[in-house]
Amino acid sequence: MDRTKIAVVPDSRPAMHAALSAAVEAAGGTVVGPEDASALVWADPAAVDVFREHIDAAPHATWVQLPYAGIETLIHLLDGSHHWTCGKGVYADACAEWMIAALLTAFRDMPTFARADSWPKQTGRNLLSANITLLGGGGLAESFLRLIEPWGCATTVVRRSAEPIPGAARTFTTDDRLTAVADADAVIVCLALTPETTGIVDADLLAAMPDDAWLLNIGRGPHVDNDDLIAALDAGTIAGAVLDVTDPEPLPDGHALWRYDNVLITPHVGNTPEMGLPLIASRVKENVRRWIAGDELLGPVDLDAGY
Amino acid sequence: MDRTKIAVVPDSRPAMHAALSAAVEAAGGTVVGPEDASALVWADPAAVDVFREHIDAAPHATWVQLPYAGIETLIHLLDGSHHWTCGKGVYADACAEWMIAALLTAFRDMPTFARADSWPKQTGRNLLSANITLLGGGGLAESFLRLIEPWGCATTVVRRSAEPIPGAARTFTTDDRLTAVADADAVIVCLALTPETTGIVDADLLAAMPDDAWLLNIGRGPHVDNDDLIAALDAGTIAGAVLDVTDPEPLPDGHALWRYDNVLITPHVGNTPEMGLPLIASRVKENVRRWIAGDELLGPVDLDAGY
Repeated sequence: MDRTKIAVVPDSRPAMHAALSAAVEAAGGTVVGPEDASALVWADPAAVDVFREHIDAAPHATWVQLPYAGIETLIHLLDGSHHWTCGKGVYADACAEWMIAALLTAFRDMPTFARADSWPKQTGRNLLSANITLLGGGGLAESFLRLIEPWGCATTVVRRSAEPIPGAARTFTTDDRLTAVADADAVIVCLALTPETTGIVDADLLAAMPDDAWLLNIGRGPHVDNDDLIAALDAGTIAGAVLDVTDPEPLPDGHALWRYDNVLITPHVGNTPEMGLPLIASRVKENVRRWIAGDELLGPVDLDAGY
Repeated sequence: MDRTKIAVVPDSRPAMHAALSAAVEAAGGTVVGPEDASALVWADPAAVDVFREHIDAAPHATWVQLPYAGIETLIHLLDGSHHWTCGKGVYADACAEWMIAALLTAFRDMPTFARADSWPKQTGRNLLSANITLLGGGGLAESFLRLIEPWGCATTVVRRSAEPIPGAARTFTTDDRLTAVADADAVIVCLALTPETTGIVDADLLAAMPDDAWLLNIGRGPHVDNDDLIAALDAGTIAGAVLDVTDPEPLPDGHALWRYDNVLITPHVGNTPEMGLPLIASRVKENVRRWIAGDELLGPVDLDAGY
């Protein structure tokens, strides 16, 4: 079987079909019909009802690349017949990028400079060598630690188990979260929302942070107790906050959190739909290159784990 | 001549004088008056008018350490009488941090979000995998390439010679600069100011950039032709600009560049005195150690090149 021959199906989302086809060609592949294909790139996450029919139309394809990181709509259609890969990690990188963008925006006083119409005072502090504490040890933390690696930060991860995470200097359990934030220059919430993590950023946690530490939230709005955050802002016991998620969301006009110069609200843009297509195209290009070269593919689906 | 005897002059900036004196002592040196000194550490970048007089007061000194990386205010006072070193490379990491902060602030639309008091539209693009072109292949480029390494950017460096730079995907000579910016998502000026580089960002270069590309300047204000930049902004042929240096500087109130929402001006904070003093003190300590040991010094000034 010629591993350069790859089908991109279906064509119901023209922009995605075009971008993923271009990615296949850029990696040295040739886009062919399913009957000739050694592999198949799935190009419409919503077209679940025709998924199996397209797979069956490609009898020689042994690898299928799925477009998104969350494949819960497709998982029941997958079996041991093929090697499945997905966009795992692709979107985590975009969110980790937001985390670093938010840190640098805050540390380098960009909001103040953006509002100025006259030469401002020289202010700012370095992210280089800073102490950063992450609440959450999942895919976002993993991407963040990979992207920040050359910056010489002292990173602390708070998670359910104290098992060390590659790239993190320290790992604490949730029980020790107040210790974990005590010397932080910034605390970043990058957790999934569960009953245990709802309201994890409360008066106690905010009080345990240094007065010059920033709070960032790219988890979910309800991770932060708004009243406690507002009290900390009013008391000046934290440096400020950068929030990509709020409770409620969108944050209504006139909400108290709009009032603070040291609160920056971004409208749930950790990754946007527009960011996703180039990112998955880049992943497809890399995986097609690996497929042709016979190398290990990125983002293998774990059928037992369900993702 | 006892190479441990080193003068730190002038004392017009007490904090810098104290920090650099401590660095000399930490390296095994002894701070002495100019008349006994084997070398001289210059401790006030602004005191240009008394520079030569202090140099002449140290008849036995053969090495002079200058505090900053950009020494254009002093270069006309230097000659073959001494071995001159400067802070070349010291501030590079802090400036490279600004470069990435500025890229992320621009790409992630942080100025728009900072000005909002109502939930804004979801906008933004990724620095991940972006095409970044650097005008300048010196210490700032080197630091930038090291810090951005995990981000999967396609990096292009424009410099005098086409000799490849570690971490850069492509290197072009200055003659080919229009080609080098043609597919850039951002173009960053990180050059020293010389007659050859003055006005390097002109109408031709701005026209060669894609319409959605950002211009960043952390070199010197005169690298950019203000009139040509304003014309490009008015014509919408670039995405916008982030300028840490301007011409003149500070940029006066009412200057046209204050008027654009897509121009972010930061007040020469690539590295601030607060960031810089620990960094230069660390360099002085290392060079004094090398001086006493008779090793090669870091950051030699190239009198012919002018930096």
